[in-house]
Amino acid sequence: MEIKVKSVDPAVAALCPVAEREGVATVFDRNQAQQPQCGFGSLGLCCRVCWKGPCRIDPFGDGPSEGICGANRDTIAARNVTRMMAAGAAGHSEHGRHIALAMQKVGKGELPAYSIRDPKKLQAIATRLGIETQGQDTLSLAYQVATLTLGDYQNQDHDVACRWIEASLPAKRLDKLKSLHALPHNIDATVAQIMARTHIGCDADPTNLFLGGVKGALADFNGMTLATELSDAMFGTPAPVVTEANIGVIKADAINIAVNGHNPLLSEVICEMADELNQDAIAAGAPLGINIVGICCTGNEVMMRHGVPLATNYLSQEMAILTGALDAMVLDVQCIMPSLPQIGDCFHTEVITTMGDNKIQGARHVSFKEEHARENAAQIIRLAIDAYRRRDPNRINIPDIKRTAVVGFSAEAVVDALAKVNSEDPLQPLLDNITNGNIQGIALFAGCNNTQSVQDNSYQTIAKKLAANNVLLLATGCGAGAFAKGGLMNQQATEAYAGDGLKAVLTAVGEAAGLNGPLPLVLHMGSCVDNSRAVTLATALAERLNLDLTDLPLVASAPEAMSEKAVAIASWSVALGLPTHLGTMPQVTGSQVVTDLMTKDAEQLFGGYFLVETDPEVAGDKLVEVIRRKRAALGL
Amino acid sequence: MEIKVKSVDPAVAALCPVAEREGVATVFDRNQAQQPQCGFGSLGLCCRVCWKGPCRIDPFGDGPSEGICGANRDTIAARNVTRMMAAGAAGHSEHGRHIALAMQKVGKGELPAYSIRDPKKLQAIATRLGIETQGQDTLSLAYQVATLTLGDYQNQDHDVACRWIEASLPAKRLDKLKSLHALPHNIDATVAQIMARTHIGCDADPTNLFLGGVKGALADFNGMTLATELSDAMFGTPAPVVTEANIGVIKADAINIAVNGHNPLLSEVICEMADELNQDAIAAGAPLGINIVGICCTGNEVMMRHGVPLATNYLSQEMAILTGALDAMVLDVQCIMPSLPQIGDCFHTEVITTMGDNKIQGARHVSFKEEHARENAAQIIRLAIDAYRRRDPNRINIPDIKRTAVVGFSAEAVVDALAKVNSEDPLQPLLDNITNGNIQGIALFAGCNNTQSVQDNSYQTIAKKLAANNVLLLATGCGAGAFAKGGLMNQQATEAYAGDGLKAVLTAVGEAAGLNGPLPLVLHMGSCVDNSRAVTLATALAERLNLDLTDLPLVASAPEAMSEKAVAIASWSVALGLPTHLGTMPQVTGSQVVTDLMTKDAEQLFGGYFLVETDPEVAGDKLVEVIRRKRAALGL
Repeated sequence: MEIKVKSVDPAVAALCPVAEREGVATVFDRNQAQQPQCGFGSLGLCCRVCWKGPCRIDPFGDGPSEGICGANRDTIAARNVTRMMAAGAAGHSEHGRHIALAMQKVGKGELPAYSIRDPKKLQAIATRLGIETQGQDTLSLAYQVATLTLGDYQNQDHDVACRWIEASLPAKRLDKLKSLHALPHNIDATVAQIMARTHIGCDADPTNLFLGGVKGALADFNGMTLATELSDAMFGTPAPVVTEANIGVIKADAINIAVNGHNPLLSEVICEMADELNQDAIAAGAPLGINIVGICCTGNEVMMRHGVPLATNYLSQEMAILTGALDAMVLDVQCIMPSLPQIGDCFHTEVITTMGDNKIQGARHVSFKEEHARENAAQIIRLAIDAYRRRDPNRINIPDIKRTAVVGFSAEAVVDALAKVNSEDPLQPLLDNITNGNIQGIALFAGCNNTQSVQDNSYQTIAKKLAANNVLLLATGCGAGAFAKGGLMNQQATEAYAGDGLKAVLTAVGEAAGLNGPLPLVLHMGSCVDNSRAVTLATALAERLNLDLTDLPLVASAPEAMSEKAVAIASWSVALGLPTHLGTMPQVTGSQVVTDLMTKDAEQLFGGYFLVETDPEVAGDKLVEVIRRKRAALGL
Repeated sequence: MEIKVKSVDPAVAALCPVAEREGVATVFDRNQAQQPQCGFGSLGLCCRVCWKGPCRIDPFGDGPSEGICGANRDTIAARNVTRMMAAGAAGHSEHGRHIALAMQKVGKGELPAYSIRDPKKLQAIATRLGIETQGQDTLSLAYQVATLTLGDYQNQDHDVACRWIEASLPAKRLDKLKSLHALPHNIDATVAQIMARTHIGCDADPTNLFLGGVKGALADFNGMTLATELSDAMFGTPAPVVTEANIGVIKADAINIAVNGHNPLLSEVICEMADELNQDAIAAGAPLGINIVGICCTGNEVMMRHGVPLATNYLSQEMAILTGALDAMVLDVQCIMPSLPQIGDCFHTEVITTMGDNKIQGARHVSFKEEHARENAAQIIRLAIDAYRRRDPNRINIPDIKRTAVVGFSAEAVVDALAKVNSEDPLQPLLDNITNGNIQGIALFAGCNNTQSVQDNSYQTIAKKLAANNVLLLATGCGAGAFAKGGLMNQQATEAYAGDGLKAVLTAVGEAAGLNGPLPLVLHMGSCVDNSRAVTLATALAERLNLDLTDLPLVASAPEAMSEKAVAIASWSVALGLPTHLGTMPQVTGSQVVTDLMTKDAEQLFGGYFLVETDPEVAGDKLVEVIRRKRAALGL
């Protein structure tokens, strides 16, 4: 059977034949084997919340219109998508809690492997949260910030919103969300309350459920914001750095270690220990020593802070092993394919899980504890060195595919670059250019890869269209990976694809910032947990103009949304007032009520709404039109 | 099409024809319409945790063996059942939080409609939690108990277990659970962490997932224990009361108001206000005034504390409206059929939702706030009175089916009854009779109704068999409803079905307690959140003998388990060391690994395990045999 490889990444095309030769299945094979997929589930009409079921609603009206309990298509579809929002919020917020607990211990001097690398950012965070910074030393401030942050997982007063969301949005948006009772008071409680209300025989009202889900999505925003900001304080706020992306960053003459997942706590220490143990690697016979490469969002984390090259994004993570030159893949949390150990077994690759709550059958487990971070990292690197000794040089196949990527555009980095144009008022040049139309609007690309689309294609297609229409482009997560691998995060891309107005602005700022050329076409804002960075920037613009986020010519796009985290992100994007493109069909269309809620009624409530369009060409046109209308409403 | 009514409840047989005549569907029709149900879901092999899916594993090995991400049958089945445990924990614990927050406000003097009706119980709780009671007034003690309790939703130290579970289990069991890292540190965090680890690309190890789920189930135990204990302090600790059960408790000459759901906060006040407004009801033309009846676990709550008669349990909740004499059904949370408003519309019945997170399309919503509890309750009663005026006497059809039930056997009530035999050492008579074999063991019946079984039948069949074999029977939730409706919670049942040894003990204790006859055959321990009461009793026995729970001849049975709460309860029952019968096929059997984990490996870990048997006759025999083996191990 010929497998249809759905990807525009040339590395995938180059390596899938290796998988075939080795007789191992990849995600593309598994996708094909799953066809046709269940229509009930795809439409959101499958219910499995109790053991009377499973139940399913007949979409054509010929079969059952209610589950056994009496839940109809609207209740079932709403419950399903609402639980996805809760799971997404749980994922991002667990990541955030892990960072906050670590920072609290750093503050108490209990974690020698970690420090506050960016005390200035810590001060800024403290001020933002209303903590007095005067006369405080860095560690005691870190302790206070972390402790206050953990309060967002503890507060039991339903009338008091989470501190981080209160500190992160324009006043007008907070008022709007308060009036809709959509502001979360406690991340964990909000997740648990969604699970409770979606239990059998509880909330059956689709609008009520959806609003409950949105509160969960805003808890996701809260959790990811605190994760991003605390990570910056501990590991440094990203600033532009030039690196490379795609599978060709794996080096035949190095011991290659891929860090894959989302949480930087371990990968940061692995980067450090790789330097310390580099001589051991050379002694083991690898002339280039240790080569750390990134995959998925752990890749984004170390790429933006240290220029570590990015090997690939979600859908092609298996390809890294298929090069035959990957000596270890270190896994932390989220979006890790459970197939990796099997593929690692076909080669010499050590596939290593590290987090107690995230194990995989067949993988080696090194139990990571922050208290022993350096020992854990050293053990992992030594496993990679041992594996390197078992590497078969005849099976190495590293396609020479890589592109330059300029990454690390945190909100602070963007403002710093703008400050080179106007140091008094850095936002003014951006506002001026939006007003004069050089920049028509701003689009944030976020989300995953999805086998329902051609990998990376929608990102690249829509981005080129928007760039030609002078829309400033930001990206995170696997979207960022798609752009970096596809060569859209460098200066050449700006020259090739930006419309004249956009090109002029990117060039002026880039030149002023000393880059000897324009900023890259797409600004890399980080991992998927860093979508909050785009909101930080948008909030600064809105506050400056005394407008709400929904008034600005801003859009979001998740062309290949797949994970529950992506469902949560897209939902809070809508709740923040942004028209939000989904290139994946959301699994709710079996309910017209829920479909309308998401694509139409949401606009009445929040200003934002889901714009569902699976054709990337058409999606690009629609997003341009949305931005045009937003500008018109502002009289621009 | 003839609908197969799967119930041994004669009220169901009597009222289903009314539904047919009126052209409304009931749960039995909907069950039939859903046949055949999806085999993938039934086996636990359907995965919907991301939008690459839905994926499903071919149980016969001919089709796909992994989902698109690479998750195999074991990962998928384990993730599914683990999320159910989390949802159950969320449900019970949300109920518990609601009570704790209310008690905290009572302590601050902010809720005039509520008080501490059982200060002695409050003192006992405080002592159990390590709070100094000396010289404390009741309200300040209530505030402290509630505040400490809420800490179980707040603690961020993963190494410190929840206070309630620490205060509720024998030392040996706590040690065992600690050694397995299964003790929850925080209810909400445990729920959120399960959602996070079951997100795409996280935990893929079925054993690790199952153990994570068990921690969630133990969080469920923690949440329900605190819900039960705090409810007793606020509303009174149940003591034996004689009442009636089944649909005949609805009275043609009264204004009938059914309270349905789980949370007593509103129903308690409705009972009070019904007394105050009784003259209004009589003035409206109802000679018998207001008649409150219970359904499901709200029914159990008011039945055990006030002798309010029980109209029915979960599966037959629609029947109450079909009598044509129900003027209002007041809904709070959980296990409420979303079909109720449609059926209410066919009659004159006001179907009223009351909780913000639990609405139903088509129902009237009266927003319940503890601060306005009396006004809310009065408004609901007035709606019922108005509805009564619209009642059509020609459509009344109340089958004269009801049975006497003696209910309200809290752990304290059981000890009080035993104290009548031995006031110095109330547990001694129970231990003596277990030792001498008059009582062979103790069985707790818990859980739901499920359309996969014949309603109530398994409960009654297994109970009769166990009783004949001299097993002391306890029951909660819809199991308690099945026994009350079926006439197994009265003295006649003891005479009819108890073996000689059991009969002698129940008679001796009943006579000593002044009941002029034996205790009922099945002791009513309360609602499903009150399963903790059975653990309280078992823990007292274990501590007395310096044994672990798993050493005692105790079993649990959930013959009709259906809800995620039931999955959580059954799972903590296993984790506490009890052989736990499931009469419903758990939706994991597509994975031999997960099936073995639950039915075999669990015994190595916990002492408890799932005993799956859908035939109630066989299940009864197996439970008798389990008790025999437990006794043999004790040398009895």
